[in-house]
Amino acid sequence: MSKNTLIIGAGGVGNVVAFKCAMNADTFGNITLASRTLSKCDAIAANVKEKTGVEIQTRAVDADSIPELKELIAATGASIVINVALPYQDLTIMDACEEMQVDYLDTANYEHPDTAKFEYKEQWARDEEFRKANIMGLLGSGFDPGATNVFCAYAQKHYFDEIHTIDILDCNAGDHGYPFATNFNPEINLREVSAKGRYWENGEWIETEPMEIMQVWDYPEVGPKDSYLLYHEEMESLVKHIKGLKRIRFFMTFGQSYLTHMKCLENVGMLGIKEVEHKGMKIVPMEFLSTLLPDPASLGPRTKGKTNIGIFAKGLKDGKERSIYIYQVSDHEECYAEVMSQGVSYTTGVPAMIGAKLMLEGKWEGKGVFNLEQLDPDPFMEEMNKQGLPWKVMELGEDETRIVE
Amino acid sequence: MSKNTLIIGAGGVGNVVAFKCAMNADTFGNITLASRTLSKCDAIAANVKEKTGVEIQTRAVDADSIPELKELIAATGASIVINVALPYQDLTIMDACEEMQVDYLDTANYEHPDTAKFEYKEQWARDEEFRKANIMGLLGSGFDPGATNVFCAYAQKHYFDEIHTIDILDCNAGDHGYPFATNFNPEINLREVSAKGRYWENGEWIETEPMEIMQVWDYPEVGPKDSYLLYHEEMESLVKHIKGLKRIRFFMTFGQSYLTHMKCLENVGMLGIKEVEHKGMKIVPMEFLSTLLPDPASLGPRTKGKTNIGIFAKGLKDGKERSIYIYQVSDHEECYAEVMSQGVSYTTGVPAMIGAKLMLEGKWEGKGVFNLEQLDPDPFMEEMNKQGLPWKVMELGEDETRIVE
Repeated sequence: MSKNTLIIGAGGVGNVVAFKCAMNADTFGNITLASRTLSKCDAIAANVKEKTGVEIQTRAVDADSIPELKELIAATGASIVINVALPYQDLTIMDACEEMQVDYLDTANYEHPDTAKFEYKEQWARDEEFRKANIMGLLGSGFDPGATNVFCAYAQKHYFDEIHTIDILDCNAGDHGYPFATNFNPEINLREVSAKGRYWENGEWIETEPMEIMQVWDYPEVGPKDSYLLYHEEMESLVKHIKGLKRIRFFMTFGQSYLTHMKCLENVGMLGIKEVEHKGMKIVPMEFLSTLLPDPASLGPRTKGKTNIGIFAKGLKDGKERSIYIYQVSDHEECYAEVMSQGVSYTTGVPAMIGAKLMLEGKWEGKGVFNLEQLDPDPFMEEMNKQGLPWKVMELGEDETRIVE
Repeated sequence: MSKNTLIIGAGGVGNVVAFKCAMNADTFGNITLASRTLSKCDAIAANVKEKTGVEIQTRAVDADSIPELKELIAATGASIVINVALPYQDLTIMDACEEMQVDYLDTANYEHPDTAKFEYKEQWARDEEFRKANIMGLLGSGFDPGATNVFCAYAQKHYFDEIHTIDILDCNAGDHGYPFATNFNPEINLREVSAKGRYWENGEWIETEPMEIMQVWDYPEVGPKDSYLLYHEEMESLVKHIKGLKRIRFFMTFGQSYLTHMKCLENVGMLGIKEVEHKGMKIVPMEFLSTLLPDPASLGPRTKGKTNIGIFAKGLKDGKERSIYIYQVSDHEECYAEVMSQGVSYTTGVPAMIGAKLMLEGKWEGKGVFNLEQLDPDPFMEEMNKQGLPWKVMELGEDETRIVE
């Protein structure tokens, strides 16, 4: 039986996954792209056909409905479901996969529509069911989480006896030319950024005010950028799986203009997620803001500049202190030229395809649910170099640092 | 027949006018306060009664309806209508006054609901009808326009043979403690500020980008403040009536935070005045912003600090160069203590009452429509000192200036 692939979600990341699977059609078999809005799938399929010559199928699906999902999985004969829909839909898609006994992969942990939790609890709780169903679930196979987890496992395997500290560093130095816009779904983006920060040290989570901690990191091929400590979901699994770890933090770059806009919008109440009565209508300010802002998909053709995402790890090797920086640099315009999406979607979508490829090829296997650092990093790192995400390792001298201020 | 007074408009300025007329009840006779929302009038009347002992009447009126206005004027037996409603309603109220042959006064020129024009054209066009009806119309009797026009006439009468340049300087150094709020109707406020600037020099109007020209003026009793060149309506009449004038400009102070919020809101489209489709509803972003922002009336009890509004004039007297600065300083908390409105409403409402008082007393008279600089400034200046708006004249030495940067 040939292996077929079902991709759910037709946003920027879905577009990249569809392109990249089509470019590896030998592995992915018949590819179906499904989302709530069929016309989005059809538009992507037309582009994929034109640029790669590969025909992919399209389907409308309500990913909140397990029966609809099951019917879709059956109809496509998929061996794997790549879930790049909204994170609100992870659980229904996982449950449909379990019932249909097909493998599952996603790029972001399950989110409750009404609270921002960023935690794996409910997905990890499905480990037992996945084992019983004899299937594999790969959680968080985007860039961060995803490639960054693999970087940690790779550092652990090849560079350290013991890793003491990890800083995950996510820099987007792209410029889309708008005074203010978000690179992906504005609601999810603004929720993440306006939430409290958190990092892990000596076995405890330490909470900070939103954007309280800022450091200027010097990103190779990009330069120094203001970087803010945020909570990010891959830390939850990494503290479980990287033994001997003493501290892990996550930093993301934001320009001053982005932050100023966000603060002003917050000050006037535009980030509110509760309904406001206005002339007899009920309006959620954050949703109205999403309507006003540029569609993230429209940023693709106009974004210039680079991304640099990586990890900075310190620890011991053969009794000596060691610091390494593993990072990947992408160029927004090159990404767009290849798959018609800018770098933020590209760097998330390619690792989703790679994770699925390794599962279909049997290079990554297991029953139950897994985070990426639990699997052998080498084949993933090899694929990154082949599939458009070449990475580098920088070894730092004693007392050398990438923090400028 | 005793002289009665009709006040239309029950916002912050209407509140001040009602208080101040009640405090001069000998002149104003029976006072009626009318607005679209009767409850607002009743609330003001209750406060006036409690603080001054004077009983005023209240009425609901649709100021867009000439028949309703005529009926109201007849019912109240008013000799004068003080219009402190929205500037969209100047023309209907003027026409009702003309038909009923009662005097008219306002504080701001007529505005079209769908375009920001700030011009007297349509009100000046009613001069002939007012003459024929044997009534007087006093246009722009607030602070600016209003007291600033009287300051110009006063300078002309007592300090100069020829005024060459005038800078009208409007400083509000009040702090309401909100990150962002507007001192009066947010729509009117934000329209004014986001419009292009304009000043008059050597017989021509010169346009600037919004907020393009900034100077730091040093305001007596307040200190140096960033002041931005705006167009403001009193310049249109002053260039006609102050002979020998070579240049006139208008500056208003804004804090950096106010401007940053405004720019960010503009950038995301929140200052738009056209409908946007959102989830099947039609929403005007600027109106939704008004709903989110604090009600200007709520700023009264929490605003601290001072206002300083005045004119800086240069010219010749007895063949020598002369510079004078006439200004009035108000304290927000003192204004609130006296009439339950902060300084911005106070400084607009008191001159409206003074203009009406001079008309009722016959000290200012004439048939047709008038701007304030066309009338003798002395009785108005005398009343300002008595009614809570004491002013000062500062004579500057040669080469002395109030511009810091």
